[in-house]
Amino acid sequence: MTDTARILLKPKEDKEIAQGFPWVFDNEIHSVKFAAADGSGIKTTSLADCKVSDGSLVEVCTNAGGFLGTGIINRKSRITVRMIGCAHADIIAADTRSYWEKIVRDAANIRRLNYSDSDSYRLIFGEADFIPGLIVERYCEDDRVYLVVQFLALACEVFRDEIIEALKNVCSPYGIYERSDASVREKEGLAEKSGWIGAERNETITITENGVKIHVDIAHGQKTGYFLDQKFNRARAAEFCKGKKVLDTFSHTGAFGLNAVKAGARKVVSADISQEAVDMINRNIKLNNASKTMEAVCGDVFDLLKKYEADGEKFDVIILDPPAFTKSAKLIQKAYGGYKEINLRAMRLLNEGGILVTCSCSYYFDENTFYSMIMHAAMDSHKRVQVLEKRGAGPDHPVLLGYPKSEYLKCAICRVL
Amino acid sequence: MTDTARILLKPKEDKEIAQGFPWVFDNEIHSVKFAAADGSGIKTTSLADCKVSDGSLVEVCTNAGGFLGTGIINRKSRITVRMIGCAHADIIAADTRSYWEKIVRDAANIRRLNYSDSDSYRLIFGEADFIPGLIVERYCEDDRVYLVVQFLALACEVFRDEIIEALKNVCSPYGIYERSDASVREKEGLAEKSGWIGAERNETITITENGVKIHVDIAHGQKTGYFLDQKFNRARAAEFCKGKKVLDTFSHTGAFGLNAVKAGARKVVSADISQEAVDMINRNIKLNNASKTMEAVCGDVFDLLKKYEADGEKFDVIILDPPAFTKSAKLIQKAYGGYKEINLRAMRLLNEGGILVTCSCSYYFDENTFYSMIMHAAMDSHKRVQVLEKRGAGPDHPVLLGYPKSEYLKCAICRVL
Repeated sequence: MTDTARILLKPKEDKEIAQGFPWVFDNEIHSVKFAAADGSGIKTTSLADCKVSDGSLVEVCTNAGGFLGTGIINRKSRITVRMIGCAHADIIAADTRSYWEKIVRDAANIRRLNYSDSDSYRLIFGEADFIPGLIVERYCEDDRVYLVVQFLALACEVFRDEIIEALKNVCSPYGIYERSDASVREKEGLAEKSGWIGAERNETITITENGVKIHVDIAHGQKTGYFLDQKFNRARAAEFCKGKKVLDTFSHTGAFGLNAVKAGARKVVSADISQEAVDMINRNIKLNNASKTMEAVCGDVFDLLKKYEADGEKFDVIILDPPAFTKSAKLIQKAYGGYKEINLRAMRLLNEGGILVTCSCSYYFDENTFYSMIMHAAMDSHKRVQVLEKRGAGPDHPVLLGYPKSEYLKCAICRVL
Repeated sequence: MTDTARILLKPKEDKEIAQGFPWVFDNEIHSVKFAAADGSGIKTTSLADCKVSDGSLVEVCTNAGGFLGTGIINRKSRITVRMIGCAHADIIAADTRSYWEKIVRDAANIRRLNYSDSDSYRLIFGEADFIPGLIVERYCEDDRVYLVVQFLALACEVFRDEIIEALKNVCSPYGIYERSDASVREKEGLAEKSGWIGAERNETITITENGVKIHVDIAHGQKTGYFLDQKFNRARAAEFCKGKKVLDTFSHTGAFGLNAVKAGARKVVSADISQEAVDMINRNIKLNNASKTMEAVCGDVFDLLKKYEADGEKFDVIILDPPAFTKSAKLIQKAYGGYKEINLRAMRLLNEGGILVTCSCSYYFDENTFYSMIMHAAMDSHKRVQVLEKRGAGPDHPVLLGYPKSEYLKCAICRVL
């Protein structure tokens, strides 16, 4: 045994970790074995009494001592260990620079199979890319690469320098902006933090997605500035929009609508409840010379759908891309009602055989519940629904088997009759 | 009430029908109401005693008499009523020619959004396209359209003439070949049947899929000659094959392998247990001038995967597209073992970070079971798996909500580490 502490799980708490789940919670830990600082040999203590520093590499083992993998400990967090891989700790510790650079390079290589250099995409999707708590968006404006990084856990924070160096080596960024301004950092015992890492650049940039230009405010936009996960869903939805009248709801940046315009939609209405979003949509409409075809409407989508129905207005394609109606398992029932209402109202507003592109980005609202909701919305609106395609997030948001949270986005392309 | 018989379901048997399930089983029927032939008024009898002719339109109702939809009755089948729609029977009966032509035209229109005229695709997918028991493949050779039709239930057989006329009007086919040679017809009280409908044409044609040429024997090939449902999965898998060494198993026609060659694979091995399939693969290799890159191997895939492992052979991309290992719910456990074995062996044969394209076309092996199987194969082969994309059949095989059987094909694109 090396100096690395070994975390012994309680009996029966090893199953999920063995299946690939990357988090060990405090209440799953039986005991900790570590080498005493005074050289008096191996000690076994409770988690509370162990002398392992937060941010250290630890090896996670079954109760019987079987090696499961290596992680990083943080006793300030209920997620006490975040797993990083199946290699032994001493192999990782021997050269952490090379270790992280290889992870970043592999993640970049797999993206390059599906994205060109001028595309924007998520480069690192946290646990699902084997860097716990790290989100990296790679935005491209002309030939300049901007990285927006979020260090959301101590597990990546402690390797901050190595990771930033790896990102520089792999991506040659023109600018790196940190958006570690999320409240989850508090649960890790970390303060919020944001700003340029290195040279200061423009905070607003213009990226191109599927040939559509989008303004991105990397310093102040939601989360990391733009939702890249819908890129291929926007392109796919647009294939149904040629010559059609399209309603794009919860539009945020107008990206679904602008993709529809580019595909030859006859008329597009993009709606959002926030005036700030509507201003952003209008900027993007201008940027894409789309004002003849597309308009932005400020309003509550629930009310708007009711109003269109009262007015007898019909659409050929409706896009529903709501924010997560639930961010906890407890509120699913309430969320279900919300999702069902917008879906059934949209079904009623479609012309016969019209296309409904309906999404949910809530992890807690799982796939089975989502499709059941669509079925019940169809029943209640007396429609029949053919699902032409079930889609998820793009390949820049891989789903790690054994880690269900990495699968959160559902996007159904439905024909409604 | 019109002359149409009304099928009253037993209490609580209406839920699935209301949700869109298109089959009423004999044991779900409470009674039948119909107008007596002697004009003596409405009679209520058991299903066994009712005088309704098989092949008639009937209205299906809740136990309390609430209208659910219209279907076609066949007392020879355990699936006694196959639902066709939500309109009342008299509206459909008034002009069955127009009714079926509209259904066929709508199905064609939705395909045209995703396929060009020179593409081959499934035009009618039975219940999921609202024509129970009818399968129509539209193959295109040069500019000539061939339809291969299967009438697999009395519900479509009784409207045979109207449906064929509709297909002619909508598709202007050069040839129509009937492949109603499936044993399921027996359960409907129908004899098997095959041959040209109208002018006789060549039985072997060459279609083009994603730029790859494929020989199709429409008279003698499996089912309707070719599996069109994987078209987009083949194209997507090929995007990972540029410069790579690819193993394509259960290859049948070699289509996955040929798509890989077209995308620039360095080396492709396509394997199948049947010599007939290998001959077909070799014909397709020749047709696509692919013999420098691709070879066909005859062998049991289970044995072949073991042999490659024993030989220390590695691949960059492996495609597993097995036939259904189970065609019944009872045999899932056995099928699970088979799927898991090929998946874990394939994972071991992949170079680090290699791509596994793994499929199951068995309806009974549902999505949750499929992804759980992949996770357990990963555990047992000590690999971690990122699912880059969860895919299904193409949009020419729509999933009808409420009819789970229409969702049968799973195709996962995985990165294996």
